[in-house]
Amino acid sequence: MAMFFNIFSLKNLLVLSLALNVSLVLRVLYEKDFEVNNGRSVDNQKDALTTTDSVLSEARATQRARPSMPSSSSTVDGDGGDTIINLDHGDPTMYERFWQQAGDKSTIVIPGWQSMSYFSDAGSLCWFLEPEFAKEIIRLHKTVGNAVTEDRYIVVGTGSTQLYQAVLYALSPQDAVEPRSVVSAAPYYSSYPLITDCLKSGLYKWAGDARSFNKEGPFIELVTSPNNPDGYVRQSVVNKSGGILVHDLAYYWPQYTPIASAANHDIMLFTVSKSTGHAGMRIGWALVKDVEVAKKMVKFVELNTIGVSKDSQLRAAKVLQVVIHSCQYPTSLGSLFDFAAHLMEERWKLLRAAVRQSGLFTLPEFSPGSCSFLNRSFAPQPGALSSLTRSGVRPLSSSAAGRLGSTCHPVRKGISLAFAWLKCQEPMEDCEGFLRSNKIITRSGKHFGVSPQYVRISMLDRDENFHIFVERLSTIHLRQSVQVEETDGRVE
Amino acid sequence: MAMFFNIFSLKNLLVLSLALNVSLVLRVLYEKDFEVNNGRSVDNQKDALTTTDSVLSEARATQRARPSMPSSSSTVDGDGGDTIINLDHGDPTMYERFWQQAGDKSTIVIPGWQSMSYFSDAGSLCWFLEPEFAKEIIRLHKTVGNAVTEDRYIVVGTGSTQLYQAVLYALSPQDAVEPRSVVSAAPYYSSYPLITDCLKSGLYKWAGDARSFNKEGPFIELVTSPNNPDGYVRQSVVNKSGGILVHDLAYYWPQYTPIASAANHDIMLFTVSKSTGHAGMRIGWALVKDVEVAKKMVKFVELNTIGVSKDSQLRAAKVLQVVIHSCQYPTSLGSLFDFAAHLMEERWKLLRAAVRQSGLFTLPEFSPGSCSFLNRSFAPQPGALSSLTRSGVRPLSSSAAGRLGSTCHPVRKGISLAFAWLKCQEPMEDCEGFLRSNKIITRSGKHFGVSPQYVRISMLDRDENFHIFVERLSTIHLRQSVQVEETDGRVE
Repeated sequence: MAMFFNIFSLKNLLVLSLALNVSLVLRVLYEKDFEVNNGRSVDNQKDALTTTDSVLSEARATQRARPSMPSSSSTVDGDGGDTIINLDHGDPTMYERFWQQAGDKSTIVIPGWQSMSYFSDAGSLCWFLEPEFAKEIIRLHKTVGNAVTEDRYIVVGTGSTQLYQAVLYALSPQDAVEPRSVVSAAPYYSSYPLITDCLKSGLYKWAGDARSFNKEGPFIELVTSPNNPDGYVRQSVVNKSGGILVHDLAYYWPQYTPIASAANHDIMLFTVSKSTGHAGMRIGWALVKDVEVAKKMVKFVELNTIGVSKDSQLRAAKVLQVVIHSCQYPTSLGSLFDFAAHLMEERWKLLRAAVRQSGLFTLPEFSPGSCSFLNRSFAPQPGALSSLTRSGVRPLSSSAAGRLGSTCHPVRKGISLAFAWLKCQEPMEDCEGFLRSNKIITRSGKHFGVSPQYVRISMLDRDENFHIFVERLSTIHLRQSVQVEETDGRVE
Repeated sequence: MAMFFNIFSLKNLLVLSLALNVSLVLRVLYEKDFEVNNGRSVDNQKDALTTTDSVLSEARATQRARPSMPSSSSTVDGDGGDTIINLDHGDPTMYERFWQQAGDKSTIVIPGWQSMSYFSDAGSLCWFLEPEFAKEIIRLHKTVGNAVTEDRYIVVGTGSTQLYQAVLYALSPQDAVEPRSVVSAAPYYSSYPLITDCLKSGLYKWAGDARSFNKEGPFIELVTSPNNPDGYVRQSVVNKSGGILVHDLAYYWPQYTPIASAANHDIMLFTVSKSTGHAGMRIGWALVKDVEVAKKMVKFVELNTIGVSKDSQLRAAKVLQVVIHSCQYPTSLGSLFDFAAHLMEERWKLLRAAVRQSGLFTLPEFSPGSCSFLNRSFAPQPGALSSLTRSGVRPLSSSAAGRLGSTCHPVRKGISLAFAWLKCQEPMEDCEGFLRSNKIITRSGKHFGVSPQYVRISMLDRDENFHIFVERLSTIHLRQSVQVEETDGRVE
């Protein structure tokens, strides 16, 4: 065996073996996956009958309709008949196709003895952060140019949801006489109020819409840009001192919005769920300027979950490597960002056509504009760029700009948001209920602090579900008229 | 290629390739691991100089002393000189050796397109629980016989730490006029008070030692059995109504204590950190009787982290498979439980000898007793068995008992706890400070609600650190007399 290794290079053998191995693993997993899903769909139908949680039961309905493998989502017949389409969650399953086509490069192998300790790098401030993952985070931001990483501490979290709570803990003094107010401009991410108040913390308290906030004293303002749900580029709106800004940049990636410049805020939150599509990993990261804030965030994650899954961090590092490589050495598939940007532009065209055809809804209009930066053309929110500079994003350095290839900055004619922020026209007041009656599950505007005339619809679902959705949306007015006639018939 | 597959079985090829592949992966990772650690140790020394957090800097010190691979922990020269030995955390790195020897059976391969959705099984109550993991949890409990799984809901968590918080959330009504009291008999797990009060929740509040608790109204009592830190088998101690019991059974495994019977409580918490040694996975599970409690726990994990890492759940499923197989088809290595039980018995012998030699400390004495169950002989806490039945563990069914081989129930002459609960003899009052002055980092009894004469010492560290520790402990009295003489010299 020793001679064998002397004759051949160890790594040559590894590559050879890995290639054969993974192709086999993939084939076996495909078959297994189909079996599992066929089996599971039956269980789910049974389980769904016994549940009382409406949202979950709707999710189940869609899961039933969904095979796990995109490859099996072939042609969709009409509008999918009675299938309930659940676009309530932002489940980023549209990315599966890219990763399937990317093949074995993104496969991770973890032996049983690896990553057993609580510690990833006991020497660093964030002792549970895998150094390999930290390295790839910095490389990705430098490649995409969407955030400044210099003079920042990286704190990893079990999704950016945990990091959001870590930030609240870090920014709220333990000895304060009353809870710190937490605000965000409506429409705001629907989970912010729920997460903030679920434990009735004495440290912080949800205080609602930032635009109407007028309480004295210190506060925390969440700035989500591009915004979830409506996609607008944002900056702070509270016009008073004493506020600390937290920037949720989960959607500040090239497939959703043009990257005008590198964000340079004190506290920035990111997640793999929306950047690479790996929601199941539950991995997010924060870029934090102040060492004391970073230390307190680390302390929160330590108290909350004693660190973050090493396995998912190692897998995330691998996945980011592939994304960066896809930017530097694009294949016929293009980069991850090309793939997602083109898919979303296509989907937005279909959605706008369906909305026009139905005549019952409106979508936010992003008036066409032009951004001279990197000669890319896109349609930002009016005043977005000036607001960007005002709100602390700085133009990329020439060196950073030099690193940016078109592959990571697809030439765009429009913004392709991760969510559609749909408004039902008068006289419809409950848009969510109306769409639900048409077997389309969305999230009502009331959860985002605005009118129930609005709904948020995920644009990140698998192809077959998205196509059923737009097909059904485009024919709703016909269904409605039929329903009205039937009703009239009954009345007469 | 198609013909090729027709001639050979796909799985034969997979096994062949995997065997070659993993052996290569392991060899490459070994080399890489040593490089990384050599490199990291330098960084750590640099980082340690700039940190203000004493505990972490001590952890760093030990990490520096620790090569990541047990294989490199060869002979230890004397008591390790100036090396700081950190046994403050219960980092279960002693298990690395078992998993290394177990080889490629426990290796997991995850392709980039797998497990991308938030949902693991949208049809089940715990929609983020991987079905494969749930299946292995049930198989493991049936094989070991340490917990009843029938008529229970499984809730997965990011370690049992997250599940502890999920339980508090689930058992504390949102509309209560005041926070629910949370108690546990001292000495209690030092993290309970910190986690319970870190957000100053209006739902629940730490109320200290259960033995002195006399407040009116409903309360939550934590019963950790075997107990962390002192290893005693426990039951509820609060002698009043209105209490809900939560059983933390993290250490109710054969390597730590004899499994007298299958625990059968309403809420039971377990973790892979202490059962298989995979602390870095951050995976725990709860067995819950009441469906409403289980639903609320799921809601908490949804709000806190939107589920649990799928990658770690899949890896945990794989690891449990190997543990179960090692019980059913023991190799020369024996089962995981044999390996750990024998290692710990050896360590306890060494520790008791060192304690005797130093003459400065005492350890809890477990008076020898005999348990007729499965004809195993061990030394439980006096009255442990009667308390076990009183506190709701029921003898195994004959079928369950039939499943139990000696490999999963090592014949034991003593209890081998995961922690040593050391007491410094008079006149020493600050045991933690005394050991710290001898470069042994432990956790003071004051964090566990008792006297600082006690310290908790992890027994789960890597071999080389444990050996430095016992060697140093056994010679402390000599060091002390030397120090005293030097002091006298200065005084004169």
